[in-house]
Amino acid sequence: MKALVYHGPGKRAWEDVPKPEIKEPTDAIVRVTAVTICGTDLHILKGDVPEVEHGRILGHEAVGVVEQVGASVTGVKPGDRVLISCITSCGRCQYCRVGSYGQCLGGGGWILGHTTDGVQAEYVRVPFADTSTHLLPDDVTDTAAVVLADILPTSYEVGVLNGQVKPADTVVIVGAGPIGLAAIQTAQLYSPSHVVAVDLAASRLDAAKQFGADVTAATPEEAERIVGELTGGLGADVAIEAVGVPETFELCAKLVRPGGHVANVGVHGKPATLHLENLWIRNVTITTGLVDTASTPTLLRMVAAGRIDGERFISHRFALDEMEQAYQVFENAVDTGALKVVLTR
Amino acid sequence: MKALVYHGPGKRAWEDVPKPEIKEPTDAIVRVTAVTICGTDLHILKGDVPEVEHGRILGHEAVGVVEQVGASVTGVKPGDRVLISCITSCGRCQYCRVGSYGQCLGGGGWILGHTTDGVQAEYVRVPFADTSTHLLPDDVTDTAAVVLADILPTSYEVGVLNGQVKPADTVVIVGAGPIGLAAIQTAQLYSPSHVVAVDLAASRLDAAKQFGADVTAATPEEAERIVGELTGGLGADVAIEAVGVPETFELCAKLVRPGGHVANVGVHGKPATLHLENLWIRNVTITTGLVDTASTPTLLRMVAAGRIDGERFISHRFALDEMEQAYQVFENAVDTGALKVVLTR
Amino acid sequence: MKALVYHGPGKRAWEDVPKPEIKEPTDAIVRVTAVTICGTDLHILKGDVPEVEHGRILGHEAVGVVEQVGASVTGVKPGDRVLISCITSCGRCQYCRVGSYGQCLGGGGWILGHTTDGVQAEYVRVPFADTSTHLLPDDVTDTAAVVLADILPTSYEVGVLNGQVKPADTVVIVGAGPIGLAAIQTAQLYSPSHVVAVDLAASRLDAAKQFGADVTAATPEEAERIVGELTGGLGADVAIEAVGVPETFELCAKLVRPGGHVANVGVHGKPATLHLENLWIRNVTITTGLVDTASTPTLLRMVAAGRIDGERFISHRFALDEMEQAYQVFENAVDTGALKVVLTR
Amino acid sequence: MKALVYHGPGKRAWEDVPKPEIKEPTDAIVRVTAVTICGTDLHILKGDVPEVEHGRILGHEAVGVVEQVGASVTGVKPGDRVLISCITSCGRCQYCRVGSYGQCLGGGGWILGHTTDGVQAEYVRVPFADTSTHLLPDDVTDTAAVVLADILPTSYEVGVLNGQVKPADTVVIVGAGPIGLAAIQTAQLYSPSHVVAVDLAASRLDAAKQFGADVTAATPEEAERIVGELTGGLGADVAIEAVGVPETFELCAKLVRPGGHVANVGVHGKPATLHLENLWIRNVTITTGLVDTASTPTLLRMVAAGRIDGERFISHRFALDEMEQAYQVFENAVDTGALKVVLTR
Repeated sequence: MKALVYHGPGKRAWEDVPKPEIKEPTDAIVRVTAVTICGTDLHILKGDVPEVEHGRILGHEAVGVVEQVGASVTGVKPGDRVLISCITSCGRCQYCRVGSYGQCLGGGGWILGHTTDGVQAEYVRVPFADTSTHLLPDDVTDTAAVVLADILPTSYEVGVLNGQVKPADTVVIVGAGPIGLAAIQTAQLYSPSHVVAVDLAASRLDAAKQFGADVTAATPEEAERIVGELTGGLGADVAIEAVGVPETFELCAKLVRPGGHVANVGVHGKPATLHLENLWIRNVTITTGLVDTASTPTLLRMVAAGRIDGERFISHRFALDEMEQAYQVFENAVDTGALKVVLTR
Repeated sequence: MKALVYHGPGKRAWEDVPKPEIKEPTDAIVRVTAVTICGTDLHILKGDVPEVEHGRILGHEAVGVVEQVGASVTGVKPGDRVLISCITSCGRCQYCRVGSYGQCLGGGGWILGHTTDGVQAEYVRVPFADTSTHLLPDDVTDTAAVVLADILPTSYEVGVLNGQVKPADTVVIVGAGPIGLAAIQTAQLYSPSHVVAVDLAASRLDAAKQFGADVTAATPEEAERIVGELTGGLGADVAIEAVGVPETFELCAKLVRPGGHVANVGVHGKPATLHLENLWIRNVTITTGLVDTASTPTLLRMVAAGRIDGERFISHRFALDEMEQAYQVFENAVDTGALKVVLTR
Repeated sequence: MKALVYHGPGKRAWEDVPKPEIKEPTDAIVRVTAVTICGTDLHILKGDVPEVEHGRILGHEAVGVVEQVGASVTGVKPGDRVLISCITSCGRCQYCRVGSYGQCLGGGGWILGHTTDGVQAEYVRVPFADTSTHLLPDDVTDTAAVVLADILPTSYEVGVLNGQVKPADTVVIVGAGPIGLAAIQTAQLYSPSHVVAVDLAASRLDAAKQFGADVTAATPEEAERIVGELTGGLGADVAIEAVGVPETFELCAKLVRPGGHVANVGVHGKPATLHLENLWIRNVTITTGLVDTASTPTLLRMVAAGRIDGERFISHRFALDEMEQAYQVFENAVDTGALKVVLTR
Repeated sequence: MKALVYHGPGKRAWEDVPKPEIKEPTDAIVRVTAVTICGTDLHILKGDVPEVEHGRILGHEAVGVVEQVGASVTGVKPGDRVLISCITSCGRCQYCRVGSYGQCLGGGGWILGHTTDGVQAEYVRVPFADTSTHLLPDDVTDTAAVVLADILPTSYEVGVLNGQVKPADTVVIVGAGPIGLAAIQTAQLYSPSHVVAVDLAASRLDAAKQFGADVTAATPEEAERIVGELTGGLGADVAIEAVGVPETFELCAKLVRPGGHVANVGVHGKPATLHLENLWIRNVTITTGLVDTASTPTLLRMVAAGRIDGERFISHRFALDEMEQAYQVFENAVDTGALKVVLTR
């Protein structure tokens, strides 16, 4: 079969590899029918994620049809159309038992396209299939579902739920890339009064408005001024960091009101400065987190009920064997305006 | 009357000042019968809290008897024995309405001995008396009650409740001064499996054991080793910072398990480094906070029921007009072994 | 001045009474500019609420302009336009301190038009004005605000918040009178997948659809069938009782899924049967409650932000001195189709 | 092998049956080393649980050593000493994924000794072994662990956690049989001010005191008087029902304060009367529930840390083949004073 293989920093190829086989009784083999590319895949290709070995098939966001299951798999069967979660859950360890699948101690967590072969391929072996896939209702399309593999639960869990967004809150979201846009969209499930989007790029702020932000700010100073005006000078109830650099985290810590929440969603490579000399007295809660995908059933019901539009994120569509073109469009998002690129067959 | 007056960095005097009078209909005048000194008072005397004006009477932890009340005070009356909370609450603003008295926008918050005259005096004017004092039951002594003014609710709210200590947790408390000891004591209200105390001073670790720590560590390395052993290498469920310097905060962030809580109680003067490059993926919750004293009624019931021993913190006792000697003992805690020094009349 | 006075079962009059005066330093006198009638007023007039004395001015939902304040009132001043909450809060007792104003032990709770003179009058004395009124922003009209006095916070707190409505839930609301409609409206703040309205009257089910119910049921049997279909036979996540008779409560207990919530909002005069022989094993949570109006600031921000339309509930408008006609329209709601009737001057 | 077999109402026998075998890849065969008898077993023997078929092996509380595991079992292996949970969890269904194992839709729930053969036998087949057993640390004895199979998690989850016991609460527990005693014991994990035990039998009230109740009441009237005295007439913060008849449930609803919690633990055969005409206005929360055993790891850590004494419940000890004598002692608890009878080999 064909798959997108990582061959070390800067090197990738859509090439022939052996079709995966069942290894454990809890495995399933899934024929991929829709797949997308994540910013994390670009990080891997830059060499930023050294634990990814040469020869690894990338990708952790896909929808497909079950082709074969191991002896103990009972929740899905050949022919079932399933969402493959970006997080694999053993379903048994102390973290999985409380819904923290991202911290799985039993062989799961983020493994697809990371420490085991991923989904940018014609077929994929999905470990712990019973607890790592979701049956799709007929009225949810492959392309609407594929954003439920990672981006929507990430923004919802790590941003909106960790940030404890509540009705009438003023929520500021720093960063309006795909993750920030998904936070803008899912924050609205809790009916904030105001959603303020902050980004340096005008095109992203336009997108933010389309996804539901009612105010935008193009600079940190503008963000501080606007949040101050909306909140009588107190600060935002919730500040969601969706970039991953120290400056944006520190901006969030500045924008939040006493008693408010800073929810970090961004993937960071460097430490930030925490101004405890100001914050110690301000009753601030700061959260970090890898997605668990425990909210995927909730989000899937919202998509099925027509209350979340998954297709909205898709800016470009390709056939599966146009993987190389899809990567080129996605890695040049500034020029191409790419949000999510989806490949189907 | 006599009072302890701040006259600028390094200068204090127990001297004659005018007796306070009712200024607002919500005021009460309280005759102080027991009072203590806080580490914060020492900070003020060093000049670290510049908003404290010369001529200010210090102190924010006291018990007394109501002598006079303003026209609209209905909850206490002359003759009532009351605990004066270190936090004043207007009872009306948006923060007070949700129990966040420490963030009061209506003229309260931490004002006693800070922006208004404090309780290290024979009499004190208590603003917003209805919502800033607590009637004391007969069976709770002045000296048992005085630790409920600040130290116990601070450790309980900002450490134990913010840290979300739960039955069977492994809790590590960094710093075993009075605040750390109070955290050790109040953490036990939630029945952790293990309470690990970390401090550089052997005498403080002895005190920690007496207050209920079942394990102690004298160095950061020992703390990491012990916490690892107790938790199968995962880390502590809750790490409580009770010192107030960057190193101890950063140690807490190292000691906590994925999904755990870091509760900062210490008063910080400098920023800390937040290692987001490690923490972004670990689902950590970090909280800061000034005490609200919303938990004081709960803690008072525990003292009245004999389930918390308030007297245990008192290492030295003085008469009220021995204020100067009391300060000398307290500011030389390393030599004198002082925890809380209490002055009564 | 004129006021609507209760003269015993079946007897009321819009008649001349003395204008109220400040009695306590915490009082305010408010000139009523918009007022409405509650189903509870009709109950009083039937003699169902025996603690209401003859000669009592009725009414507990109004907006007005402050005319005079007592010596200790600081939050509002003459000329301020305010919402008068149906619940009076002393702001000091153990219940008020945790936001349970409806259970106030300090002289508040539901007292207006009940144990003290109410708001169906040209002027009203509002006890504890600082903690029982809300300043209105300029862009919120009197008539949009008046539904925030009782009906919206009641449905939201006692129905939606007690019922713990969450994104993607299936919520069934039994009873589509004004309170049920307000529950339908405010449930949407938490983005349920489905809101099912149950009522015997077709006209009410039409209203339910306009307020946001996506499915309706005209009989208990139809409700059971529909909820079963929407939930794979499990039952509703949340069932909100908005009628106040045993049958509707028992229907809610039947419609809820294992692990779900039954939130009783209705005012009951008789006991219901609780089928513990079925329910003991089903992990059901049942809540009751009088409104606290602690959520009023939240709801007011939503109205100000244009996210809740308060005017939508108003079916009939009158001048203040048309009180008698307004009562006639409201007490014949079946024929007149009255939801909320509002009187202004 | 030998097992205790149900042969219809009133008929049981300790008799030879075939040794169980692995049926599913998720099964384990466990050699039982300690087992106890539950009040529910007596109900089954009276014919009160008609879905139990003739020929069924009873029992759902045991400890044993794994002898054999199915192909997909990875969490336990032959030789491991394990606690068998009274609740079986498939680990995959929507209820298991949120810790509601008691409501398992995937073939689990309460099945042992109910719809599949139970643990009062020399060997038992344990379905879904990975998610339905708990590895025992060396320092926890079989007999200390066996009370973690059902009685301790039941009282803790359905009584203490559902009732939301908090520090300084006044908790009243109606019924001081084994479940009530376990509620008394586990309520103390949250440090209530007062635990009031109510029972008609003096011997049970003596036991209640030994388990930590600080006050006891022998009649409903005495209970009302005592709770009133302890709470200034308000009522208990939490009332836990541990009997299972309408009168005791209704007593709990009377004893609870406005804003308090009634947690039903008892197994009911008849409906109760819910006095909504009183309760609608009192902000009461009522919960029911079958145990999930999601708290077993927490409780096991407490036993291992020496903070819960599991052995304390054991009043009588037998060898495994004295099953008949053990049943006789347990079913005559009034005369024999039996709490938990444990059989070991």
